[in-house]
Amino acid sequence: MSRASTFNLKEYLQARAEEVDQAMERYLAPDPHSLGPIVEAMRYSVFPGGKRFRPVLALASAEALGCERQRAMPIACAFELIHCFSLVHDDLPCMDDDDERRGRPTNHKVYGEDVALLAGDGLSLWAFEVAMQSPADLSAATLRSLVRELVAASGHPGMVGGQVIDLAAQKSGQIDGPQLKKIHAAKTGALIRGSVRCGAIVAGATPEQLKQLTVYGEKIGLVFQITDDILDHMEDPEAVSYPALFGLEESRKMAAEAVQEALTNLESFGEAAEPLRALATYLLTRTT
Amino acid sequence: MSRASTFNLKEYLQARAEEVDQAMERYLAPDPHSLGPIVEAMRYSVFPGGKRFRPVLALASAEALGCERQRAMPIACAFELIHCFSLVHDDLPCMDDDDERRGRPTNHKVYGEDVALLAGDGLSLWAFEVAMQSPADLSAATLRSLVRELVAASGHPGMVGGQVIDLAAQKSGQIDGPQLKKIHAAKTGALIRGSVRCGAIVAGATPEQLKQLTVYGEKIGLVFQITDDILDHMEDPEAVSYPALFGLEESRKMAAEAVQEALTNLESFGEAAEPLRALATYLLTRTT
Repeated sequence: MSRASTFNLKEYLQARAEEVDQAMERYLAPDPHSLGPIVEAMRYSVFPGGKRFRPVLALASAEALGCERQRAMPIACAFELIHCFSLVHDDLPCMDDDDERRGRPTNHKVYGEDVALLAGDGLSLWAFEVAMQSPADLSAATLRSLVRELVAASGHPGMVGGQVIDLAAQKSGQIDGPQLKKIHAAKTGALIRGSVRCGAIVAGATPEQLKQLTVYGEKIGLVFQITDDILDHMEDPEAVSYPALFGLEESRKMAAEAVQEALTNLESFGEAAEPLRALATYLLTRTT
Repeated sequence: MSRASTFNLKEYLQARAEEVDQAMERYLAPDPHSLGPIVEAMRYSVFPGGKRFRPVLALASAEALGCERQRAMPIACAFELIHCFSLVHDDLPCMDDDDERRGRPTNHKVYGEDVALLAGDGLSLWAFEVAMQSPADLSAATLRSLVRELVAASGHPGMVGGQVIDLAAQKSGQIDGPQLKKIHAAKTGALIRGSVRCGAIVAGATPEQLKQLTVYGEKIGLVFQITDDILDHMEDPEAVSYPALFGLEESRKMAAEAVQEALTNLESFGEAAEPLRALATYLLTRTT
């Protein structure tokens, strides 16, 4: 991994997040003629952006296959819109009932529950319009794949389904290791996996490449969740999490092994996959 | 219009609704392996079906252009899924707070607010998977059009935006005629218009045909809303509605004129457009 040390991931992530922000500004521009405050309410939960982790992954995945990354920008931003929609609905009183996110009042605190619900709906639907702004030369089969991946990652087979079993598990108060893995694989893993896959699909990945990048996506999704749990564990040791169920040491070991598997699956990729490699390693050691 | 009298609309509507129900059963089958009760909760608000008005319109629009109607079934059912999603979210306590719909407890009364919210999300996302089950021979451009129509009709430029300006108008307590028309055109009209347009797009409509069917869709959407308002007006004369704002007589006249414009736009269509003609006329005189 000596190559990774020469790659400046911090600069890379910042530059890509800025590109994503610029694209998102185009895809969801302020609209003074919109129907009421709906576009404003949607934009409130999209800007200012965070790390834009999912879209950056999609871009890096496309680049790993030698594809000009702007070609993956629409589908990358579609995943970000889905992520933003899920945050708006997650924060609603009937869900997590959160008043703040990223140091600002949550959407429903600003616009009211009704408009926030509709803003979330609007963001999830708009993701598909943005996905359709993918390059004009993509085949019908590729367009179909992108839409289906987006649905499978976000809908009841993925994120939405994961939220439902998470709710059920929280209510029952009984979550074991296998259940926790299943919840996270669907709730947060599916969107990360889907972002990586869709970047690869736009790039015209071979079945073998897509398979390897899929495993990469699954493994870094797992690492993302475990390190998230470890960071949260410091603040709330009682919460159901990887360290609570498996212990801190074992959780760190699981994360390290997952990174190793992610890297193994990139072995046949060249220099262009360096950002993906660096990202995997970074996830293991991140502190925020 | 002597032809219309020989066409049995009642039988037609019933037969088509049954076909739609059968297709919906395939597109959203019970899934014992689903993540928790999510598929069950989604199905609760899809079955048993009502008139399936929007999908039947899409099928009739495709047939009017000589297209085998099963080719339009996926996009037709996608519109129905969007309609069902909107009902689930509309009924939530933060929106209309309804306990009953079609004589049954609303989704959140059965599954809880959190699961109902997610079931609505799941239905709206699944609409795009079902849309992608459209015939394999459709071009990339046609697929793109279908997805964009679905988003424009349902998202913030259409239904979702209409709901937001409806909320704002209700809060302000001041709605005038032009505002009422704008609200309805977006809130209920866009989905009806979109259903007609997408049936035509699958059928390979010429630009001129699509234009005429678009006007047809807009006009019957208006008729649908005015007659809905007239029916509701009998029960609640105080509610903001066409009869409340324009008077009962003027409202009936507006509806009749809209039907006439709808029929005028079908003049260049042949016998195959008979169901669309009968539907327009029926909407004017319906009592449920």
